[in-house]
Amino acid sequence: MASRPDDSDVAGFQCPIPIAQYPRVLLAHGGGGQLMHQLIEKMFVPAFGNQPPEARHDGAVFEIGPGRLAFTTDSFVVRPLFFPGSDIGALAVNGTVNDLAMCGARARFLSVSFILEEGLPMDTLWRIVQSMQRAAAGAHVELITGDTKVVDRGTGDGIFINTAGMGVVAAPRPISPASIQAGDAVIVSGDLGRHGMAIMAVREGLSFESAIESDCAPLVEAVMALLDGGIEVHCLRDLTRGGLASALVEIAEASRQSIAIDEARVPVREDVRAACEILGFDPLYVANEGRFVAFVAQTDAERALDRMRRDPRCPAACLIGRVRDIPTGLVTLTSRIGATRIVEMMSGEQLPRIC
Amino acid sequence: MASRPDDSDVAGFQCPIPIAQYPRVLLAHGGGGQLMHQLIEKMFVPAFGNQPPEARHDGAVFEIGPGRLAFTTDSFVVRPLFFPGSDIGALAVNGTVNDLAMCGARARFLSVSFILEEGLPMDTLWRIVQSMQRAAAGAHVELITGDTKVVDRGTGDGIFINTAGMGVVAAPRPISPASIQAGDAVIVSGDLGRHGMAIMAVREGLSFESAIESDCAPLVEAVMALLDGGIEVHCLRDLTRGGLASALVEIAEASRQSIAIDEARVPVREDVRAACEILGFDPLYVANEGRFVAFVAQTDAERALDRMRRDPRCPAACLIGRVRDIPTGLVTLTSRIGATRIVEMMSGEQLPRIC
Repeated sequence: MASRPDDSDVAGFQCPIPIAQYPRVLLAHGGGGQLMHQLIEKMFVPAFGNQPPEARHDGAVFEIGPGRLAFTTDSFVVRPLFFPGSDIGALAVNGTVNDLAMCGARARFLSVSFILEEGLPMDTLWRIVQSMQRAAAGAHVELITGDTKVVDRGTGDGIFINTAGMGVVAAPRPISPASIQAGDAVIVSGDLGRHGMAIMAVREGLSFESAIESDCAPLVEAVMALLDGGIEVHCLRDLTRGGLASALVEIAEASRQSIAIDEARVPVREDVRAACEILGFDPLYVANEGRFVAFVAQTDAERALDRMRRDPRCPAACLIGRVRDIPTGLVTLTSRIGATRIVEMMSGEQLPRIC
Repeated sequence: MASRPDDSDVAGFQCPIPIAQYPRVLLAHGGGGQLMHQLIEKMFVPAFGNQPPEARHDGAVFEIGPGRLAFTTDSFVVRPLFFPGSDIGALAVNGTVNDLAMCGARARFLSVSFILEEGLPMDTLWRIVQSMQRAAAGAHVELITGDTKVVDRGTGDGIFINTAGMGVVAAPRPISPASIQAGDAVIVSGDLGRHGMAIMAVREGLSFESAIESDCAPLVEAVMALLDGGIEVHCLRDLTRGGLASALVEIAEASRQSIAIDEARVPVREDVRAACEILGFDPLYVANEGRFVAFVAQTDAERALDRMRRDPRCPAACLIGRVRDIPTGLVTLTSRIGATRIVEMMSGEQLPRIC
């Protein structure tokens, strides 16, 4: 397959589909005929650096060495499409790169599938495609196969994006809730709540002294830094829908271990905390798109923190708790005033369409 | 990973989510909290036979032998969700299995991502999930990782499904337009136009003496029969959006070869032909979901036909044309009355939301 062209090939250039002729996406752009062909050939292929036409096909074929592979998928329906710090395109790439990283894998190949609503401005699609291209370059991943569907006006919402990803597992041991052990250190990779609050601030029309920007970012380098450093990593989880609290509850239930965290150690920026208070959210439940929790062997905790903090994505990584030696399957939180309570999984819908 | 439970574990059973309590999908079913957790644990995991909870994670990890892999994706937005002969669930599984088969690969693992509209009847989701389970069993593929999003009422259309698939390439040589040679036999695997006309007949409220049923089916066994038989397969393409005509035009353009087909040899059932005439469609451009075209070495044509016809999906496979020795990059069709014309790619939208 051809190598991905560098940014200069497309990013910042004008839309390769003539906007004057096709200002908006038409049903025919998903119909399998000339217009779909043009969209693929002129926009997606140059941006994503797919195979040359004579090799192009229903799928992508590649060789990969022996070993364990990871496979994951996510659909992205975030609203608005563009928000402070990121957009649906970068989110769709980083989200799947991060899910693979949480399996201890480095993403290699992504598929991209668009569900477009008839009437989507062509230039909006182009901005999103460029953002995906930049995110793919940033995460060293290739977008190698794809699909485009168009639904009639009123039956979609501009654009939904699905990505699926394949990666090569670099972790020497299984990374999973089942690997967690009593005594494990619980580390978060940075401050919480920015992505969710960035979206909510836009939706609610709130303005703060400084805009809260989404933390959307690829986490693969931070995870590889842990693995390359020989850190005994037991479990990893990115803190998306449901936030830190839901991730910990799921892990505690699945592992039947008990996790104790210290609220005062959980990093939340002041502006994010203020936004949460205004809107009535608990930052523990707010979605992040560039944060993860790592369970590492007790003896490796300091080295893990040191390695993570050297990554530009995780300077504020910190230890927030421990796995206790009483396997209750519960998460407990010690509050700032010293009271201890059980953390529950989020009930109801807190922040719809956050990713 | 756990093996898939057999049909008796779920198919035909009542919906595992209490319908009285949750008759319809709520936004919270995609929110990352308790309701999403319940949907995954009670409906998706038992149906799809995913990993046990203690191993469950952001992605699936598996070992696969050395060799070439194929990777593909498709989103499905067909309307109506249920139609004569199939439904969106079976289509979503078979569509991706078939795209891999067209790479000469046997599908092994599929991801499934749902975009649900708030208000979708829970029982509709359950019927679709059961159909996916049966289709996966029929194609010997595992649904190993997934995602669920819910969009607010009026911003989706019931359900959209994305599947991505990974398969192991069984073909000894590259299967691609670039492999086509002058003299190659052009074979279609069966009669054309049924899927598109089944959908259109429902949409238009037409009734024929016998209902036209979609041809939706997995094509992997027919392709493997060719490869196992040592047939020199040069190119394969399933005849979905845009039908036979668009597939041939794309292949001719990509390969720069010239393809000549004989209209009288293209199999179209009488009821399908009649429906096409009533609705003003050309069966050459109508979508199929269980048909493919194979380009095989001239000397292997008879053996290929024999092997394909032994497959229960392809009893009506037939030779419809040849690759000519003048490389024009065009497709020509000799009509029933002996006139020859150039076949063009479909322009405009013929059948929206057919898959």
